[in-house]
Amino acid sequence: MSKANNPKLQSWLDVPANSDFPIQNIPFGVFKYKNTAPRLCSRIGDQIIDLNKANELGYFSDLEIPRKVFRQPYLNDFMALGKAKTSAVRERISELFNKRGRKWNSREMVDHLCFAADEVKMLLPVKVGDYTDFYSSIEHAKNVGSMFRDPKNALLPNWRHLPVGYHGRASSIVVSGTPIRRPKGQMMPADATKPVYGPCRLLDFELEMAFVIGQPTELGQSVSTDKAEDYIFGLCLFNDWSARDLQKWEYVPLGPFLGKNFASTISPWIITLEALEPFRVAGPRQTPKVLPYLQYAGEKNYDLDLEVSIELPTGENQIISQSNFKYMYWNMCQQLAHHTVNGCNIQVGDMCASGTISGKKRSAYGSMLELSWRGTRPLPMPDGSERKFILDGDTITLRGWGERDGVRIGFGEASGTVLPALE
Amino acid sequence: MSKANNPKLQSWLDVPANSDFPIQNIPFGVFKYKNTAPRLCSRIGDQIIDLNKANELGYFSDLEIPRKVFRQPYLNDFMALGKAKTSAVRERISELFNKRGRKWNSREMVDHLCFAADEVKMLLPVKVGDYTDFYSSIEHAKNVGSMFRDPKNALLPNWRHLPVGYHGRASSIVVSGTPIRRPKGQMMPADATKPVYGPCRLLDFELEMAFVIGQPTELGQSVSTDKAEDYIFGLCLFNDWSARDLQKWEYVPLGPFLGKNFASTISPWIITLEALEPFRVAGPRQTPKVLPYLQYAGEKNYDLDLEVSIELPTGENQIISQSNFKYMYWNMCQQLAHHTVNGCNIQVGDMCASGTISGKKRSAYGSMLELSWRGTRPLPMPDGSERKFILDGDTITLRGWGERDGVRIGFGEASGTVLPALE
Repeated sequence: MSKANNPKLQSWLDVPANSDFPIQNIPFGVFKYKNTAPRLCSRIGDQIIDLNKANELGYFSDLEIPRKVFRQPYLNDFMALGKAKTSAVRERISELFNKRGRKWNSREMVDHLCFAADEVKMLLPVKVGDYTDFYSSIEHAKNVGSMFRDPKNALLPNWRHLPVGYHGRASSIVVSGTPIRRPKGQMMPADATKPVYGPCRLLDFELEMAFVIGQPTELGQSVSTDKAEDYIFGLCLFNDWSARDLQKWEYVPLGPFLGKNFASTISPWIITLEALEPFRVAGPRQTPKVLPYLQYAGEKNYDLDLEVSIELPTGENQIISQSNFKYMYWNMCQQLAHHTVNGCNIQVGDMCASGTISGKKRSAYGSMLELSWRGTRPLPMPDGSERKFILDGDTITLRGWGERDGVRIGFGEASGTVLPALE
Repeated sequence: MSKANNPKLQSWLDVPANSDFPIQNIPFGVFKYKNTAPRLCSRIGDQIIDLNKANELGYFSDLEIPRKVFRQPYLNDFMALGKAKTSAVRERISELFNKRGRKWNSREMVDHLCFAADEVKMLLPVKVGDYTDFYSSIEHAKNVGSMFRDPKNALLPNWRHLPVGYHGRASSIVVSGTPIRRPKGQMMPADATKPVYGPCRLLDFELEMAFVIGQPTELGQSVSTDKAEDYIFGLCLFNDWSARDLQKWEYVPLGPFLGKNFASTISPWIITLEALEPFRVAGPRQTPKVLPYLQYAGEKNYDLDLEVSIELPTGENQIISQSNFKYMYWNMCQQLAHHTVNGCNIQVGDMCASGTISGKKRSAYGSMLELSWRGTRPLPMPDGSERKFILDGDTITLRGWGERDGVRIGFGEASGTVLPALE
């Protein structure tokens, strides 16, 4: 376990109660201050730490990292340094900012390195090469299978044998805070005899987590489940916005396309696997037994609470889903082993999302499709209205965190407000 | 019509009979000579023209193009200049190398700018951001539908209403000549009760063309069919290698994944839309009438002969498919309009493949799946063997060209040899 994870550490920076970013987190992101160039950062409490400045001032000089790595619009070059280096940077930030660490002039450090979180703009942290979306929550797959096929045979025959996944759109992954334009497209209403064109009527969110690839492979190479974590840099929240009516009409036989690729929202912070170590738990028992290349040893699930809230145009808020990342039937190591078993190469910055993470209870369902059971059970809203799907002006916010020994490691938020379709 | 397309032009460089690269073609690619850095090039006959050197020597100086654009490992920055610039470069190369053009010292130009094609290594020409694969040949869709579903209802209900497509893997797109490792993975043999793991047994090619995006859009923006050509820089050959057994087991409900993402082979040359102008033809009549956003005016199909040959490990060759790009039911402008109708953004270097291009006749089928009708009608080979699918050591080569007024505009080849699966 990394020294930086020690629950006894405290930062000399202020960390508000319930902050996602205590000294034990030390996430990585990219920020912009006014009109200056984007650069890499971390965060403690409500302070953004400028890693480029820290490097210029020599705080990382013994780590032998090329200077330009910290002056980039994306984390990719940083992640590509490898975990020996990136973990050393995390440890160093911990040393610099914890009360028991090296004695620096803290006043000067704040003046030189820190920005208030509300002074800066957080940018998309990763240049995503390829984006893959899995379908790895058994509750979600059963719910969807029950609604659209047969409750008695909700899972398709392959589902328990491999982590079903497909390629998604990388270009339209946006950072939290980016408005989401309601998509238009073609759909076949239930009562229609021919398709119609217009704004999506069944706009949905999907509560997901995504992992980011930090080390590449060559074409032809496979990554085993026991090596998979070496290739995973960290995780973020992922909202796989979905246009259910477009998706339903288009998706046979080659899968979702326009129903998904208009936007996906991620949180601006990548939380390292190191920071998530304390939250490892065993995954669900897999029956039938999976093929050897999908078998794994150790605890590969993570106990991370997940929450979705809706903010109405009136400003009122409501939590509409409370789930947990530990519900995943297929873990990330299995996903990556499967993804590469055929020799498919991975590149730094590739992103793999989990698929909607639903729990057993209705309150833990990770999409409006499931929460409103296809629109048949509308959700009452605090302003007296109800929701079957997402309306214009609604803001959907994903949050996630783990808590152990009084330390809360959080992901910040992945938030997006839906704008009306263009005329 | 571009001046460079004039069929009367002749180059003072040697152009062998039946060359794909007369002075009217002027394709764009990226090459490497020995250990020098990659740079942009064109080709006439069997001569590779070093565009970086041409620029350094001032041949493009009045075109005001940043020098570094020609010293890149990919065409992306060049394409991003826009068609006014890239077409001007094409016209200038035509002027420099045609007999009636400016009077340059041709001996010196060859010494300074040209390399014999067999002296250089052609590289992957484009850094592909997102790759999309369509399914736009009605003959292919009917063949597959007949084999796997019902010959009487071979097309799914959405097929004639929209160009079905899905996202594929960008990282594993490789340039012609790259060996293809037989993928391994999970499959469910017809007689099995549980899935097995091993090398793919039903390895296939797919004869496709792909277009390359030269201009980006913002998220939320759509491209109409009449503006689509402004965003398309050019085309290349595309072999969408497919592992039929992996694909069949995995593809429900989210589409192909490991059955496709282990490799796709493209030709090293991007042929500009300008060079293909002479080959425009009307597309097939679309019934029923498509929605307004998919309607188009003008001739949007291209009469380009396509051919697939197999070279056996013994060295013997055979043409196994002769098709034509004009068979496409959905044209590229419709594909791009559909792709962006929901606001999905496109980026320079994105690639959109056509889907397997099959004609009506069996000899025009664009995959082994169709040619051997799922393995039921093996193809006799010149060495006395037969093929249902592709065997280790086989080389599959795609070729394509148009011919008008005695001028042949060709694509070169997209070729790959299958290596045995890794132990």
